[in-house]
Amino acid sequence: MAGAPGTRSAGHGSSIMADAANRRADEEPAMTSEPTRPTGPAAPIVTAHQHQLEAELTDAVLASFGPTPDPRLKHLMEALVRHPHAFITEVRLSEREWQRAVDFLTAAGHITTDRRQEFVLLSDVLGASTQVINVNHEASANATEATVTGPFFTEASPEVPIGGDIAGQAKGQPCWVEGTVTGTEGNAVPGARIEVWQADADGLYDVQYAGQRVSGRAHLFADARGQYAFWALTPTPYSIPQDGPVGSLLQRTGRSPMRASHLHFRVTAPGMRTLVTHIFVEGDDLLDSDAVFGVKRSLVRPFRQQPPGTPTPDGREVAGHTWCRARFDIVLQPAAS
Amino acid sequence: MAGAPGTRSAGHGSSIMADAANRRADEEPAMTSEPTRPTGPAAPIVTAHQHQLEAELTDAVLASFGPTPDPRLKHLMEALVRHPHAFITEVRLSEREWQRAVDFLTAAGHITTDRRQEFVLLSDVLGASTQVINVNHEASANATEATVTGPFFTEASPEVPIGGDIAGQAKGQPCWVEGTVTGTEGNAVPGARIEVWQADADGLYDVQYAGQRVSGRAHLFADARGQYAFWALTPTPYSIPQDGPVGSLLQRTGRSPMRASHLHFRVTAPGMRTLVTHIFVEGDDLLDSDAVFGVKRSLVRPFRQQPPGTPTPDGREVAGHTWCRARFDIVLQPAAS
Repeated sequence: MAGAPGTRSAGHGSSIMADAANRRADEEPAMTSEPTRPTGPAAPIVTAHQHQLEAELTDAVLASFGPTPDPRLKHLMEALVRHPHAFITEVRLSEREWQRAVDFLTAAGHITTDRRQEFVLLSDVLGASTQVINVNHEASANATEATVTGPFFTEASPEVPIGGDIAGQAKGQPCWVEGTVTGTEGNAVPGARIEVWQADADGLYDVQYAGQRVSGRAHLFADARGQYAFWALTPTPYSIPQDGPVGSLLQRTGRSPMRASHLHFRVTAPGMRTLVTHIFVEGDDLLDSDAVFGVKRSLVRPFRQQPPGTPTPDGREVAGHTWCRARFDIVLQPAAS
Repeated sequence: MAGAPGTRSAGHGSSIMADAANRRADEEPAMTSEPTRPTGPAAPIVTAHQHQLEAELTDAVLASFGPTPDPRLKHLMEALVRHPHAFITEVRLSEREWQRAVDFLTAAGHITTDRRQEFVLLSDVLGASTQVINVNHEASANATEATVTGPFFTEASPEVPIGGDIAGQAKGQPCWVEGTVTGTEGNAVPGARIEVWQADADGLYDVQYAGQRVSGRAHLFADARGQYAFWALTPTPYSIPQDGPVGSLLQRTGRSPMRASHLHFRVTAPGMRTLVTHIFVEGDDLLDSDAVFGVKRSLVRPFRQQPPGTPTPDGREVAGHTWCRARFDIVLQPAAS
């Protein structure tokens, strides 16, 4: 939305919404010309007659979706009428603000490509993506928690063997990541497919570079005992893209564009529910102010810095580098029957 | 949003929303593991603990907009958090449905150009555009009512003199339109600028043709007494564009894409509030099912068919055509001080 300062003042509009919700189209309209004034300073005057007109329009739009054949789609569309109408009438959205919203969505659409997804970013910074995750991944006894996919996942990634390196051209400190994939009963999930992707030390994913670079991104398969390991880069904090409308929105609202340091995982296995998550870096200052509300405490892991000269697990030479290591044991839920 | 049949069932979720609304983050969380079940058939089970987690996320996102310097923008953004979160938690939006929404918005963005505005069309078919008009143009004693701008307005249009023809290459029955522009006190508004645009008899606006056609679109200026007249085309019903995601949405929901016959006006004058409106054709079968909810009774006008051979007001020859005439007296409100 990123609207300019509106030309209208508007206060807390909840009494408008409550009025509208309590009124039914088949009730006697309240035709009094006595205006009601929502609470809050400098709130707009909205008459009962005006409330009635606005509620009647909402009802007419709801009725237009009556013929929808699919009941779930009908339910969704009715909610997609009620909530935007409640928003518009509650905030008394100005025509200029509406135009700004149209311009914002247009700009988001035009900057979106196969390698840049501004609508996902918008959903992320509004916490909508995380809320969808919450709704679909209710807390389970011991399964690994899900978090947002983010805008940088791509279907195509190179395969690496267990112990392989996902970094490619991406620069950063080498980081050994290892763990197991099990079910909630502790049973190994042999051959689980593990997709991993991350930003480099400059804070950029491969898809943010010109060209068709693929780096900091790979998939591998857990072994017969569900064990896996790979070399990645120690995650570092980075800014979400600031050159589009979502970046402008964060600037205008005084919000930080920084994401807490993290490494993305997507884990799939036959008969198991797909898990999309991150691990975060213990001690990161940004854990409490992640721009996309993706941090869950259960996903924070120690990334242990190794003293110079410490041998690597697989004997790899990291001359000129220090390295770190992290462990992430992944617990998948069974797929819904 | 134009989602496929969801894999989740969901019932009426208002009890979820009411719970969330009534709960404050600083209250003792209800940690009972006894699930509450929203009313409705086959509704998802949502535990009190789950409600709490979802409400806490919404509160965290609201808090993130706390630093917004502009109070109006802060108010808008808070509402743009609360309403989408209420939507997601109420309908228990699935991840697949969320992805469909992202795909829908992406498709809308990619089909939108300088001459095609799918986001306006989306706002129109959800009744959001008309609701914004309602909110900003509360009923006035005798001023002409506003209605939606629609996606086909363009800033650039040729000027025609009073009595000129706006049709250009657009085909259809000639229609003489005349009227006056006055203020609410009956005072003439001399020199008011009147923009007019319309679809042709094939149901298409100029911008829907390939190339840079400009037709069925012009502006003129009222005379010193506020009077105006022009030749246009008798409005005919047409379908809104069906080749984009909004057209697909209407198909999937069993809604008609037809707009009631109309002629668009945008009237501006110094010191007066800009009026964007249509006139509709009395007797049109589509007045009650307009795809964008734009019809207001006060804007319906007789378009009087003239018997063959009836002389035209300005002596123009319409050989081989019949013609019709309509009158539209426009009453502008003073600009807000």
